Amino acid sequence: MRHIHVIGIGSGDPDQLTLQAVKALRATDVFFLLDKGERKTDLSGLRKGILDTHLPDPSAYRVVEARDPERARESDGAAYSAAVDDWRTRRADIYARMITDELGEDGTGAFLVWGDPSLYDSTFGILEAVLARGGVEFTYDVVPGISSVSALAARHRIGLNRVARPVQITTGRLLAAGFPEGVDDVVVMLDAQQAFRHHVPSGSEDGAEGGTEGGTDDRADGSGGDGGMDIYWGAYIGTPDEILISGPLAEAGPRIERVRAEARERKGWIMDTYLLRRNPDGEQGRGDTGR
Amino acid sequence: MRHIHVIGIGSGDPDQLTLQAVKALRATDVFFLLDKGERKTDLSGLRKGILDTHLPDPSAYRVVEARDPERARESDGAAYSAAVDDWRTRRADIYARMITDELGEDGTGAFLVWGDPSLYDSTFGILEAVLARGGVEFTYDVVPGISSVSALAARHRIGLNRVARPVQITTGRLLAAGFPEGVDDVVVMLDAQQAFRHHVPSGSEDGAEGGTEGGTDDRADGSGGDGGMDIYWGAYIGTPDEILISGPLAEAGPRIERVRAEARERKGWIMDTYLLRRNPDGEQGRGDTGR
Repeated sequence: MRHIHVIGIGSGDPDQLTLQAVKALRATDVFFLLDKGERKTDLSGLRKGILDTHLPDPSAYRVVEARDPERARESDGAAYSAAVDDWRTRRADIYARMITDELGEDGTGAFLVWGDPSLYDSTFGILEAVLARGGVEFTYDVVPGISSVSALAARHRIGLNRVARPVQITTGRLLAAGFPEGVDDVVVMLDAQQAFRHHVPSGSEDGAEGGTEGGTDDRADGSGGDGGMDIYWGAYIGTPDEILISGPLAEAGPRIERVRAEARERKGWIMDTYLLRRNPDGEQGRGDTGR
Repeated sequence: MRHIHVIGIGSGDPDQLTLQAVKALRATDVFFLLDKGERKTDLSGLRKGILDTHLPDPSAYRVVEARDPERARESDGAAYSAAVDDWRTRRADIYARMITDELGEDGTGAFLVWGDPSLYDSTFGILEAVLARGGVEFTYDVVPGISSVSALAARHRIGLNRVARPVQITTGRLLAAGFPEGVDDVVVMLDAQQAFRHHVPSGSEDGAEGGTEGGTDDRADGSGGDGGMDIYWGAYIGTPDEILISGPLAEAGPRIERVRAEARERKGWIMDTYLLRRNPDGEQGRGDTGR
């Protein structure tokens, strides 16, 4: 029976792999690498660097590369879901073909997932879709990895939650629609639009500037007017290009927008994550007191 | 200058450490181990097993053990926060003394944190409190670890979020007070009371039974009446005693209560985590379709 490892490889630093992940790499015959196109060649390079670091014998494994289908960028919820469904179907076609054609009947394959496969990753869904089609049989297991969220918190030396409080992990798209209910600590992933801009306290000069630059002026309920908000932001975490910025959102937010745009321009791509931390009334600053 | 590593060591499997964590262990002169008392001697054993696995030369490091102060178990929010504050002050006393007395002026110490230091861990707060007192100076860094949340998701081979949707990480105490607003996927940690019992769909026979057993009948708004809820539960994840149970909450919930009580009785302690996944109207089962 064919077997597949879904391996979380952390956010870019080869030392961020677990020993379990290294063992899984070494037990793999064929690596399936999905390439998102030229914009992300740095990422492909990082991934190959991880293989080179941990697999000293290049004759012990094969790498099969395929082009990840482009996903339409729809803006509203229903169209977005439909676009994702279509993209997943095309991706399942590619996965099914790779597993059937490139992996021997008792071979072991692996998909490498940035960060941890449990957060905003589609690999399990696609593997289940391939299995449901019935064309090829295989088993699979999952090796957890250091998520960009854990790596962000470690680099800023912060907890994600405050004492006895919840934390929500969400997307830039959802944050742009409003600050989540019932939480003061929000981790944002997949944010191509710097949605934190929408949550700069109203009346803040920098905030108004940030809002204008982005061509938006809708401020979500519940942001501003209280003790303010802190942001802990990181890009390319764990790599030599790592950038970390933190501080009150009104001050750090516009700075992050500038730095992010420059870095994205220079490298051609960016992967970033951040924590927004709303302070209780009258409290401002690093916000550690409640941790 | 003294230096401290705060090292996430995963949820019990020595192979769950990252290479970065192993390097930090090997660069450590003195390990500070906080013992929670006899109830958790298995945990101390697991931790010592991790050191023995990764540090072949026992003469290269010292272990300093201290007893973690007991924390009063207050039930309401304000008293709970006060009890935690008091407990942290006493803990800071212990940390300050250990760092001052046991670590040489250019020595490297380490605190080992189960899972990942970013989730429901007090170590940074205590270190900052010790630094704020001014009695001893040191620098510290953080090595992220595989959280029990990532390990849970990997063992169940699920994503924590569904496509383009948020996930909230919260406590048993908060879940007992109500299912969080605006999310359908909730990870629960620190749950000594099996708070999932409060969210069994009303009208379910097993659910009613579960509620009666627990001596509670308050059902939170929003649970029940829709497509139902799935639970993905795990205890002692990553250890030889690992237990995994998943399924519709109405069926799996009472089973988890029984299995959890038996395991806790047998071992004298339990560490468990779970994901509650509310299904859209009319959908029931593993809930993968939306992922």
